Amino acid sequence: MLTSKGAATRQRIIEGAARLMRERGPAGVGLDDVRAATSTSKSQLFHYFPDGKADLLLAVARHEADQVLADQQPELDRLATWADWEAWRQRVVARYAAQERACPLSALTAQLGTGDPATVAVVTDLYDRWHAQLRAGVQALLDAGEAAPDIDVDRAATALLTAVAGGATLLMATGRIDYMESALSEALDGLRSPVSPAG
Amino acid sequence: MLTSKGAATRQRIIEGAARLMRERGPAGVGLDDVRAATSTSKSQLFHYFPDGKADLLLAVARHEADQVLADQQPELDRLATWADWEAWRQRVVARYAAQERACPLSALTAQLGTGDPATVAVVTDLYDRWHAQLRAGVQALLDAGEAAPDIDVDRAATALLTAVAGGATLLMATGRIDYMESALSEALDGLRSPVSPAG
Repeated sequence: MLTSKGAATRQRIIEGAARLMRERGPAGVGLDDVRAATSTSKSQLFHYFPDGKADLLLAVARHEADQVLADQQPELDRLATWADWEAWRQRVVARYAAQERACPLSALTAQLGTGDPATVAVVTDLYDRWHAQLRAGVQALLDAGEAAPDIDVDRAATALLTAVAGGATLLMATGRIDYMESALSEALDGLRSPVSPAG
Repeated sequence: MLTSKGAATRQRIIEGAARLMRERGPAGVGLDDVRAATSTSKSQLFHYFPDGKADLLLAVARHEADQVLADQQPELDRLATWADWEAWRQRVVARYAAQERACPLSALTAQLGTGDPATVAVVTDLYDRWHAQLRAGVQALLDAGEAAPDIDVDRAATALLTAVAGGATLLMATGRIDYMESALSEALDGLRSPVSPAG
């Protein structure tokens, strides 16, 4: 266990490394760059990241995975009404439109090796948490009678998740955000109760 | 313009290179490996691919992009009835389940640089053709009265495309195929006319 001061130092190193890796790409950042940018000594760095760069890359990947969800707040945490969902949709599309092709998490997982078990665990955990929040939001719509009553809540959450993930993949490949916009609108419209108002 | 014999030789080199790159990854294949595997001389290779490996990588990427659509045939070309769509869905899911994490086209575009204009053109063209075929299939359902009459055909095709692309992204990241299965089922169910039978 780290002391709270130790945890704060570790977090400061991770955030500094994340900033550098967003600017230059993970392959372009060495431990000396991280030391210089975060004013830490070599022994401090190895105290917190004993395996060196691989450890640090994984910690930054975890940080960037958290950031994917943080960038969807506060909307993601409080999805309940259609207005909440619409606000979330707009935030997600704006976030990815601003990011364009440069997905920091993809760059990190590519550097770590997408098949590496620790990397898979980081990304699987991200998708699990993301899916759970979308699922809770769909359930809230259903409980309020605002969604079609025959909805499969799990599957609906998966459709929303893949609309964002697929939209992001197409954005990175083509530079076009409209795939994500259309796919998210379509997935959300699919949830609407046939008798509920369209607004 | 190549003669038909020249075109056949060029295609033979591309297919041989694609096989090697599927086995070893694009970074692990040199021009000498391609020459040996396809029984071609150095001068032949440079006749067909004057810029060397970059030219060849791009040609293999185009070949693998074509393969993404070819792997969905014959179903993709003849999407009209619900039975056609169901057969297509099964083929797509089986294809990606068999591929697991190893997407040959992703490996190539990563090697070429996803922001490279020629790479973007290859992938954009793939998604355009794919979208057009899905769109034609949705339109056929609509024309036959088998889909909900208020469907936006373009958007529905985009939702199907992102379900596959997002499902593939999640498959590569987590090793799980069920995201794609659920997302595709959800997207297809969304097309159904409320009065049409569910089968």
